[in-house]
Amino acid sequence: MTYPNGQLSEEKVFKDPVHRYIHVRDKLIWDLIGTPEFQRLRRIRQLGTTYLTFHGAEHSRFNHSLGVYEIIRRIIDDVFKDREHWDNGERLLCLCAALLHDLGHGPFSHSFEKVFHLDHEDFTRAIILGDTEINKVLRLMGKDFPKKVAEVIAKTYENKLVVSLISSQIDADRMDYLQRDAYFTGVSYGHFDMERILRVMRPREDQVVIKHSGMHAVEDYIMSRYQMYWQVYFHPVSRSAEVILTKILHRAKHLHEENFPFKTQPEHFYSLFKEEINVKDYLKLDESVILYYFQTWMEEEDDILADLCRRFVNRNLFQYVEFNPHLQMQQWMELIQLFKKAGIDPDYYLVLDSSSDLPYDFYRPGEEEERLPIHLLMPSGELRELSRESEIVEAVSGKRRTDHKLYFPQDLIEDVSTRKKVKEQIQEILKKSY
Amino acid sequence: MTYPNGQLSEEKVFKDPVHRYIHVRDKLIWDLIGTPEFQRLRRIRQLGTTYLTFHGAEHSRFNHSLGVYEIIRRIIDDVFKDREHWDNGERLLCLCAALLHDLGHGPFSHSFEKVFHLDHEDFTRAIILGDTEINKVLRLMGKDFPKKVAEVIAKTYENKLVVSLISSQIDADRMDYLQRDAYFTGVSYGHFDMERILRVMRPREDQVVIKHSGMHAVEDYIMSRYQMYWQVYFHPVSRSAEVILTKILHRAKHLHEENFPFKTQPEHFYSLFKEEINVKDYLKLDESVILYYFQTWMEEEDDILADLCRRFVNRNLFQYVEFNPHLQMQQWMELIQLFKKAGIDPDYYLVLDSSSDLPYDFYRPGEEEERLPIHLLMPSGELRELSRESEIVEAVSGKRRTDHKLYFPQDLIEDVSTRKKVKEQIQEILKKSY
Amino acid sequence: MTYPNGQLSEEKVFKDPVHRYIHVRDKLIWDLIGTPEFQRLRRIRQLGTTYLTFHGAEHSRFNHSLGVYEIIRRIIDDVFKDREHWDNGERLLCLCAALLHDLGHGPFSHSFEKVFHLDHEDFTRAIILGDTEINKVLRLMGKDFPKKVAEVIAKTYENKLVVSLISSQIDADRMDYLQRDAYFTGVSYGHFDMERILRVMRPREDQVVIKHSGMHAVEDYIMSRYQMYWQVYFHPVSRSAEVILTKILHRAKHLHEENFPFKTQPEHFYSLFKEEINVKDYLKLDESVILYYFQTWMEEEDDILADLCRRFVNRNLFQYVEFNPHLQMQQWMELIQLFKKAGIDPDYYLVLDSSSDLPYDFYRPGEEEERLPIHLLMPSGELRELSRESEIVEAVSGKRRTDHKLYFPQDLIEDVSTRKKVKEQIQEILKKSY
Amino acid sequence: MTYPNGQLSEEKVFKDPVHRYIHVRDKLIWDLIGTPEFQRLRRIRQLGTTYLTFHGAEHSRFNHSLGVYEIIRRIIDDVFKDREHWDNGERLLCLCAALLHDLGHGPFSHSFEKVFHLDHEDFTRAIILGDTEINKVLRLMGKDFPKKVAEVIAKTYENKLVVSLISSQIDADRMDYLQRDAYFTGVSYGHFDMERILRVMRPREDQVVIKHSGMHAVEDYIMSRYQMYWQVYFHPVSRSAEVILTKILHRAKHLHEENFPFKTQPEHFYSLFKEEINVKDYLKLDESVILYYFQTWMEEEDDILADLCRRFVNRNLFQYVEFNPHLQMQQWMELIQLFKKAGIDPDYYLVLDSSSDLPYDFYRPGEEEERLPIHLLMPSGELRELSRESEIVEAVSGKRRTDHKLYFPQDLIEDVSTRKKVKEQIQEILKKSY
Repeated sequence: MTYPNGQLSEEKVFKDPVHRYIHVRDKLIWDLIGTPEFQRLRRIRQLGTTYLTFHGAEHSRFNHSLGVYEIIRRIIDDVFKDREHWDNGERLLCLCAALLHDLGHGPFSHSFEKVFHLDHEDFTRAIILGDTEINKVLRLMGKDFPKKVAEVIAKTYENKLVVSLISSQIDADRMDYLQRDAYFTGVSYGHFDMERILRVMRPREDQVVIKHSGMHAVEDYIMSRYQMYWQVYFHPVSRSAEVILTKILHRAKHLHEENFPFKTQPEHFYSLFKEEINVKDYLKLDESVILYYFQTWMEEEDDILADLCRRFVNRNLFQYVEFNPHLQMQQWMELIQLFKKAGIDPDYYLVLDSSSDLPYDFYRPGEEEERLPIHLLMPSGELRELSRESEIVEAVSGKRRTDHKLYFPQDLIEDVSTRKKVKEQIQEILKKSY
Repeated sequence: MTYPNGQLSEEKVFKDPVHRYIHVRDKLIWDLIGTPEFQRLRRIRQLGTTYLTFHGAEHSRFNHSLGVYEIIRRIIDDVFKDREHWDNGERLLCLCAALLHDLGHGPFSHSFEKVFHLDHEDFTRAIILGDTEINKVLRLMGKDFPKKVAEVIAKTYENKLVVSLISSQIDADRMDYLQRDAYFTGVSYGHFDMERILRVMRPREDQVVIKHSGMHAVEDYIMSRYQMYWQVYFHPVSRSAEVILTKILHRAKHLHEENFPFKTQPEHFYSLFKEEINVKDYLKLDESVILYYFQTWMEEEDDILADLCRRFVNRNLFQYVEFNPHLQMQQWMELIQLFKKAGIDPDYYLVLDSSSDLPYDFYRPGEEEERLPIHLLMPSGELRELSRESEIVEAVSGKRRTDHKLYFPQDLIEDVSTRKKVKEQIQEILKKSY
Repeated sequence: MTYPNGQLSEEKVFKDPVHRYIHVRDKLIWDLIGTPEFQRLRRIRQLGTTYLTFHGAEHSRFNHSLGVYEIIRRIIDDVFKDREHWDNGERLLCLCAALLHDLGHGPFSHSFEKVFHLDHEDFTRAIILGDTEINKVLRLMGKDFPKKVAEVIAKTYENKLVVSLISSQIDADRMDYLQRDAYFTGVSYGHFDMERILRVMRPREDQVVIKHSGMHAVEDYIMSRYQMYWQVYFHPVSRSAEVILTKILHRAKHLHEENFPFKTQPEHFYSLFKEEINVKDYLKLDESVILYYFQTWMEEEDDILADLCRRFVNRNLFQYVEFNPHLQMQQWMELIQLFKKAGIDPDYYLVLDSSSDLPYDFYRPGEEEERLPIHLLMPSGELRELSRESEIVEAVSGKRRTDHKLYFPQDLIEDVSTRKKVKEQIQEILKKSY
Repeated sequence: MTYPNGQLSEEKVFKDPVHRYIHVRDKLIWDLIGTPEFQRLRRIRQLGTTYLTFHGAEHSRFNHSLGVYEIIRRIIDDVFKDREHWDNGERLLCLCAALLHDLGHGPFSHSFEKVFHLDHEDFTRAIILGDTEINKVLRLMGKDFPKKVAEVIAKTYENKLVVSLISSQIDADRMDYLQRDAYFTGVSYGHFDMERILRVMRPREDQVVIKHSGMHAVEDYIMSRYQMYWQVYFHPVSRSAEVILTKILHRAKHLHEENFPFKTQPEHFYSLFKEEINVKDYLKLDESVILYYFQTWMEEEDDILADLCRRFVNRNLFQYVEFNPHLQMQQWMELIQLFKKAGIDPDYYLVLDSSSDLPYDFYRPGEEEERLPIHLLMPSGELRELSRESEIVEAVSGKRRTDHKLYFPQDLIEDVSTRKKVKEQIQEILKKSY
């Protein structure tokens, strides 16, 4: 398979704060980056609502996608090329899959997927296979090429080595986002010696493995990941913003179904509400559009919608306490009743949020699915699963960790003036939980 | 002057990639950060269209404003406190002015100001003095306090030492943006030893001066600034995006004045078009709103508006050649005629853009005004202007440097099929200029 | 207690790659740094033989001592000052103890201490209390002051809070060396958010504790420490150099006792050999002096001494295999016999080296002694030992980890030409062990 | 030309703080690094006495030599390979010349060369061509190979492109030392975008040129160089240490010629004093040996020698004032007389030190010789000398800058007790100069 005018006359580079430069020599890659569908990723933040906690985290999925591409390019061109088990005929396929793996993400993915029962992976596939500029460019490589790219991303492609490059527990996706998210948030976690890890990656028939001598660098990577999850990705303040976002979407849908006379009609949401959105409409969604609606809705007549939108836009978030729904079922019931008595709708203002269970593979918004374990290549040639060799990894893997929080608007509770007793009861329960 | 509940019970910190942490101990500052007017700066990029050239440059003015505040806080608390000439009663005033100095910036400031004859400094003043949350918080310090803050920012405040902290050729504003913009773009310019510069700053009656021993650190800062201007701020690709943005605004205004039947009416622009915008409407503008319009306008019936919007949103920018309007007046005239013959409206598709003259003080979008020169404090106690001591600074200062470029859509020219001769003539002129 | 001319007229700074600047305002500190005993630390490498593995690790104990001082200074001046439990009258005492804690280290401490049965802590005390410039400077603070400094370093000082600042499991010593050793070796481990840790340190009656909110930063520090031990401090190649160094010292002592006619007499070693060295002679030892002897001894008539010195100086080290002395006693015995048959003296050329056991507190050359556990200050005011709160720390603490290696000179074995059978037997045993 | 067993079975890497990793694939390079002559560079500091000013600057010429090798390797393997004008048959020659270019440096080169009229370049050649391990390894490439390597380093090799890679105004030598010295001193100068510069280097028949688009990165490099010279390399405190070092050597030579009864005979210096040193003896010199002598000489009976050695070893340096020998000839004469009257030998205690003139090419200790100018490759294919295109470079190039300082021991002057008048006169002259 070759692409018409396969190589650019001169290599193009993007300045990148994480990898210094992103290098593009293949015209195919250059053309993909230039499509409207790929450029749209500039308008979707990599970390959703996290910028409301870590103000530096304003970077987009466009950045991250380029980064994943660059890591894969280095693995293939600097490490795998000419090694046994590696077929360089898969190179462009890998690069395309790396570049496009997040193509189907919408604005604030996590909340949108939950509320509207979407799956960004379906949209990735649909954009690659549908009537899009991306598809037109990919098809120049051959009629079957778009399908192959989609299969690699969906992990159904027959060459499992290729799949594991793109999706495993130590793939280019994770190596990029850990470093990138650490860079933009400014936290000191997220550093590990990627250059070393790339150098010890080896192709095998059905997966990428890591030379044993690189085990400690991998340990460091695993620990970075652990810290990033609990320090950044699951930060309770970001989750507060997400809780409010989710409730805005619920409220808008509810009002639409009740024929509420919006001043600014939710046109971009119609098909989302019906859960019948097609690719064309989906591609019109981005975070600018969503924020436009939230801002204009701050002036709708519905108090709940207007209030929630103001909270999100002006970052006046909910407070939270630790709250275990299994052990505190009774308080939960009481609080619902007390909120009602106080005139605060618990459907929108009293929200339990549990950070999903942690299996061996740490959870990340939108990445629930299983990924392949990491195998070490021992000096003897034998393969051993990482946690059998590393006591640190063994210590943190396989264990579930759950975090339950109850979110509520402290200011509204404090404003309850007519029913002093109710207010005090609410405050007492919430205090005890702390 | 004291603020009610002046100190937070516990210091708050923001994680910041540039300064590591932003420290807030004063309740006044905390409350200002929480206002909707200040939060709005999250939705305005620090570097306008630069993210289309340097993909990392997606950071907001919110970030920068916190950074300027932090630098001023360090100067005052770590260096100036207890020194002669410094009155710590001005501390909170300085901190407020630092935090709020960019408050009046709108979306894509540079283009908006040019097209609609606005001045972000007017809006900064208006927001500080008007009926806003910011004003309410500031007034708690005393009736006159908002006015003082506005005066410091406007450089009319009587204590010139305070003014020079906020606005001079080596003020906290510049020290923050050089480092921050370098960090987020990922370029290797923009580094200098700020810690050293802060340590050698000294208060004098009417200005901040720099101890002579810190001269080389200041030289390094000046050179960083020089490189950032020509490598980042004046990058021809970002200017191409700005040219298109400007033309979109012109076209939309023109269509509105012609009563064009927009599918998506430019409601947020009405008062801008009339050049009668008030603070309340101004505050509704941010880059999400603008991008929302540009995206919906991609489907308007007007070909020019739709095309320009598509170019901006999908990053399909204009190409450029060096072009000196003074020396190439004739070609300019010819090109206009040729474009007309080719059916490409030169009013929108043939744009001369000159990077403004460079006085001693390097130009930056939206900062044309003069700033104070830098004075060195010699061991003898005497003050000397920097460029008299430093041959490097002398070499780069005072000299004007101009850069003229002509922007045009190469693809449209290549598509001219009916008038082959015209196309060739256009291409020949544009090639010669290169 | 006050020091004559207590404050410098102008703060002095040292440029430091790790902490950016080391700040000195107290004349006492400045004078201590200027003593010959302290300057001698410039001629003793921080990491002994590690520079033969990581070529950047050429930094001296002088650097590290300044770094520890600076960290303590920041804790006291920026965090502890004016807090309950903290008596600022202890400030100078702490700073002196921090600066001088490693004063008694000699050249290649670890090996010298083992061979000559020395303890650098004894020398630290002796230098502080003896007839030295250091003592003269300290006595200006009061007759008892040197004794107090020595007590803090020896951990016998009555104020245990002061002791724990200087020696605990998260003291300034460790925070400096982890970062510094990582910086100079260039490894990517060793990074943690020290600024955050300093901010959450709190004085209690008898120890420094860490606010619970800083737990994750401490976890990161513990993991850095773990990685630095196994990746850098226990690196088998550095241990190979140390093995050779130890054998040189043994051989020289042996030859001296046998009245071997050295061309270059080991004058600096006489009292070491007798194990009767006094402070004055001890202070004449540094790594230049040792390397001078090793170089001249390369030309002694004794083959073993000359060979070992050439190996050390020219970095022609021993090879190694994993070897468990408990399980492989028989091979060990066989190897000794085979070496003898091959004409290679096993006393000098067959060396078992076990990295000492790891208790809860990771072992580091010269720091075998127990240190205080880390206590978290919970929101409730209660103290909890770190490993009870952190599952990561729990996973790595308390566990012993041992690493046994057998060192030998591969080239000598390969050169065994006369007894082919013996050579093969040796090679077979050594291969099997691998 | 091929080397026996040309490629290592597995690439070796050195962890390097500046370039992250140094990669070695060629057995020739590996074997050269293992020679005693190359290992000796570990015992010679890269920046001589600078570590007495910047305590981090303890790094050796070994480090720098590996760094230069790595830069050349990247240029050849990543940029030049397969380009016109580049003959990959020169690859190993370039790598060897890069690795070995500083091989002839002795301890504290600058002072030793001045006092004993040596030239490290002569020794580099002599070591490469003489009876050394280096020569043995090189000769495996062919009988003429050592001579070629020596020619490249001496800039007499016929292929001038090869010469310019190793020695020009933007060669690998300078790019490494600027970054490395900045890293180890910790100063914020010395940063530039080397990766970019490497990418825009292009081979021409007789030199390396720089693509015009990389001009600004080169400007940044030139400015880094300028700052490093005046901030680090010419730092007056390091020069003070060098002045003392020079005087020690003079004194020792003088005493030796006078048959002074040294307790520790200067055996390693005998042939230096006679200026008849051969390669074998030269290779025995390193900074450990020199420091050994200086320490033992602190106890010689000669007051001047002992005092100067104590000053150097204990870092009790000379003070200095600005002093122009041309304008202040009379004061100079007076001071000499006054010193004599005060009993302080002006031959050793009153030293004028002028930082050598700066031609276009900034001066650096031991690199007086001219280097090639930098040429830009314009889009037209034309070559233009850098300073014609860059106004910044133009501003700093070609200008001489001289710095004269007078060094003297303030403490000795203050101790002059018998002749109060003389003391006052000395102090007055020295004060006036300041």
